[in-house]
Amino acid sequence: MSDTAQQRSAQQRSAQQRSAQQRSVEIFDTTLRDGLQVEGVSASVDDKLRIAEQLDLLGVDFIEGGWPGANPKDIEFFRRAASELDLTASTLVAFGSTRRPAGKVDDDATLRNLLEAETSAVCIVAKSWDYHVLEALKTTLDEGEAMIADSVEYLAANGRRVLVDMEHFFDGYTHNPEFALRALEAAVVKGASHLVLCDTNGGSLPNDIEEIVGQVVRHVGTDVTVGIHCHDDTGCAVANSMAAVRAGARHVQGTLNGLGERTGNANLTTIIPNLQLKLGYECLPEGRLPRLTAVSHHVAELLNRAVNPQAPYVGSSAFAHKAGLHVSAIARAKDAYEHVEPEAVGNGTRFVVSEMAGRATIQMKAEELGLAMDGPAVNQVIDDLKRLEHEGYHFEAADGSLELLMRRATGWEQDFFRVESMRVITDELPSGEFGTEATVKVWVGDQRHVFVAEGNGPVNAIDTALRKALTKYYPALDRVHLTDFTVRILDAGEATGAVTRVLLSATNGERDWTTIGVSANVIEASWRALEESIVHGLLHT
Amino acid sequence: MSDTAQQRSAQQRSAQQRSAQQRSVEIFDTTLRDGLQVEGVSASVDDKLRIAEQLDLLGVDFIEGGWPGANPKDIEFFRRAASELDLTASTLVAFGSTRRPAGKVDDDATLRNLLEAETSAVCIVAKSWDYHVLEALKTTLDEGEAMIADSVEYLAANGRRVLVDMEHFFDGYTHNPEFALRALEAAVVKGASHLVLCDTNGGSLPNDIEEIVGQVVRHVGTDVTVGIHCHDDTGCAVANSMAAVRAGARHVQGTLNGLGERTGNANLTTIIPNLQLKLGYECLPEGRLPRLTAVSHHVAELLNRAVNPQAPYVGSSAFAHKAGLHVSAIARAKDAYEHVEPEAVGNGTRFVVSEMAGRATIQMKAEELGLAMDGPAVNQVIDDLKRLEHEGYHFEAADGSLELLMRRATGWEQDFFRVESMRVITDELPSGEFGTEATVKVWVGDQRHVFVAEGNGPVNAIDTALRKALTKYYPALDRVHLTDFTVRILDAGEATGAVTRVLLSATNGERDWTTIGVSANVIEASWRALEESIVHGLLHT
Repeated sequence: MSDTAQQRSAQQRSAQQRSAQQRSVEIFDTTLRDGLQVEGVSASVDDKLRIAEQLDLLGVDFIEGGWPGANPKDIEFFRRAASELDLTASTLVAFGSTRRPAGKVDDDATLRNLLEAETSAVCIVAKSWDYHVLEALKTTLDEGEAMIADSVEYLAANGRRVLVDMEHFFDGYTHNPEFALRALEAAVVKGASHLVLCDTNGGSLPNDIEEIVGQVVRHVGTDVTVGIHCHDDTGCAVANSMAAVRAGARHVQGTLNGLGERTGNANLTTIIPNLQLKLGYECLPEGRLPRLTAVSHHVAELLNRAVNPQAPYVGSSAFAHKAGLHVSAIARAKDAYEHVEPEAVGNGTRFVVSEMAGRATIQMKAEELGLAMDGPAVNQVIDDLKRLEHEGYHFEAADGSLELLMRRATGWEQDFFRVESMRVITDELPSGEFGTEATVKVWVGDQRHVFVAEGNGPVNAIDTALRKALTKYYPALDRVHLTDFTVRILDAGEATGAVTRVLLSATNGERDWTTIGVSANVIEASWRALEESIVHGLLHT
Repeated sequence: MSDTAQQRSAQQRSAQQRSAQQRSVEIFDTTLRDGLQVEGVSASVDDKLRIAEQLDLLGVDFIEGGWPGANPKDIEFFRRAASELDLTASTLVAFGSTRRPAGKVDDDATLRNLLEAETSAVCIVAKSWDYHVLEALKTTLDEGEAMIADSVEYLAANGRRVLVDMEHFFDGYTHNPEFALRALEAAVVKGASHLVLCDTNGGSLPNDIEEIVGQVVRHVGTDVTVGIHCHDDTGCAVANSMAAVRAGARHVQGTLNGLGERTGNANLTTIIPNLQLKLGYECLPEGRLPRLTAVSHHVAELLNRAVNPQAPYVGSSAFAHKAGLHVSAIARAKDAYEHVEPEAVGNGTRFVVSEMAGRATIQMKAEELGLAMDGPAVNQVIDDLKRLEHEGYHFEAADGSLELLMRRATGWEQDFFRVESMRVITDELPSGEFGTEATVKVWVGDQRHVFVAEGNGPVNAIDTALRKALTKYYPALDRVHLTDFTVRILDAGEATGAVTRVLLSATNGERDWTTIGVSANVIEASWRALEESIVHGLLHT
């Protein structure tokens, strides 16, 4: 290549970046609707409310909460969201579809449910592939167009901002561009704020997306925002979404961690940093991008579905370097070995063999907890973290255990109680039912107690037996109860023979905390987490 | 868009496809070298030989086997490969680097090891980013160039086909295009067969890749094959590899299932079908693409690392459809709902069954399983699903249990074994460690067996005891092992006193299945899932 060509291309790039900095792209999160179509996940209304809070914390523009009408749980979600959620950055959106073929808008259950969700914005799916109008809806193209026009008009007349998801748009546009464009025009004319082009079957490639989105943007002009909604069936959902932005789309739909049916929706945890860090688009409010990793992991935890360690930006391996000769070189010039600063997305450089824990972080955490820590204590924490995380602990997810670990590094030991030994027996009874019984021998001060309790499983039985012994000394324990319990196998290759990580969440009504236990034996791991949970509770009451 | 523009773009696409059909792209698999850099995986020489056989079965052009010299195991691999492997489609490649700075080629351990691997082709990594030559190698750019020239010349003179991996090429080209091109020229002049442009830090986006590869292809002409080697740090490794092909690259490096350091290498299991099915390139010998899913799963199994269910083309969810009104529509016109025929890659359409399932879904699922089901049996399945899902079962996530449920609705009962009773004891030993012991009383036919086993936890102990009793009757059970175990508390409000759902995944090396158990008692839930897992395994061996 000639020097001139090289200079020209550098100039083009810099011009693109300058102009990009003046633009922003809206982020529309559909984790709670399309994302929950992923196989094997089900979320309670509580889970969904907690996830919405996380999305607002991250600062996405829109949170699609569910499909009221298709699902009774989603009606309850919107009802509770109205009173319990206090969103500061995000707009909650209810999802639905256009009216039925040959129906009327003011007599349509789907549209009524949409309005009853009482969100300021709604998103409706519309058919833009002629085949689906003719074959799935069994109606005419004119009626297909009227369904869109009537529904948008009705929802807009009821004061709603109306986004329209154009289902199967890319396949439809390829087969019958004229009808696909009629579908778009019907929505625009009646006041839709957004036309969201959906690659519903997920089969498109970036160049097709870029070409078609470009044609649509030129066709519909600037009165309406063009959006993109991709699925990852070709492994290109991220690139497809970015190709659409390149062609003028200014609204990207996707899910956290790429949750979704089949191969998943476009992964917002990858797209957001790509757009923001690489292309200079503004997607989240200023200062929010460093929350990305924590939000991604928190939501994964709520759905009991670990973040893929290999996930770009937020995965635990995303900035992991195998220890070797180049580790000191990396420390000298990180930008020669890392494509972005991991801190920009709230992740960190990790050296796989020699784990480097940051002194500054530990010091800051100690200040947060009101702990006076000298140099040797900080070193002790760093050593303990290295050793324990190597064994499978994961303190990022267990603030309660981290606090105890840090206190112990200052010489503190808990003296609330000491368990001498325990035994748990699970029997299949002659009736075929299972019974579990735990015996716990525990010292409080110089008093030894032996208590037996039944339970619904080993942890419940141990918890019950221990509380029998402790509550007369520590009545405040009555207010402490466990709220969640997750078990993860760390080396999936060996399944029930592998190391187990247990996370226990608890609350005393004022504060919540999470503790962790790791062991080859799942009962031991559970017990470690339970013991720390109770100690943490006693420490803070 | 005007009709003319639409016609023109359709013409362009069809012209591209015509011309693409006359071209082919080489596939270079580096699962055994770069892929094994993934965190948490280690492979024995035996494993590596088995994986090479699978790659040859798939028909990739090149199999990079390892780095002899960097790793004693890799020296053994090439020694054994020479005598034990009988590759019919693939060329085995040894990997190494250029000679040391200020060294001599005939006195260089790396080059000697490369030759001693006795492969017809070798791939060496060369530094094409000036920064890395100056700072990591601590030498001059002239010497950096000479290291490439000398090494290629020496290896070619020893009869080897020489591929050169241009490390950090895209960053290097952006910072100092003149040196990056000098590095390429040095290799070409001395007889390299391939220049492989590596996005080593993985930070590039498709348009940058397309632009730079295009410039390189025009610069170096047609005497040498230009290749591409991407990492997935922006979630674009697949799109980047395809952008390179668009720009003229005709050699793609990657790994099966996207294994690799950090976020992984470019995923060949996605790229190959994209290139072959979507763009008409020839990548594998004719008739081999339908082997893709089986090879992907087999290699995952050899490395004890399950294929991501969401993986494009080969994942178990890639062509899974949620039950609903449109299931019958899918059956009528699959190409309106699936972006390619799943059979083209050896996968299949799967209907995910849950309590929402209608009769059509059950009927189709029965056909998929080869079960003859009459009307009453279908009704029975629907009733069972509703009742059990209300109790907390979730069959969508448990294909193995669903199949057993459907078989039972036809009157089938398993008669492999019958468990009379069991007992599990977990003790905290005086040492503070935990021990778990299970006693299982089981009938096989009219024989009663009592077995005791220790384990790392209740499920492991029960599994071990039961297998002691069963394997002499069913030796195939030896091939069945558990691969994953997840526990979910269904009513988080009550934590350890709530209902527990256990999912167990297992494999026999050929097929994977997941079973489910639900109970207030976590041990009972685990046992229900384990029993179904073993029955499913016995049914399919």
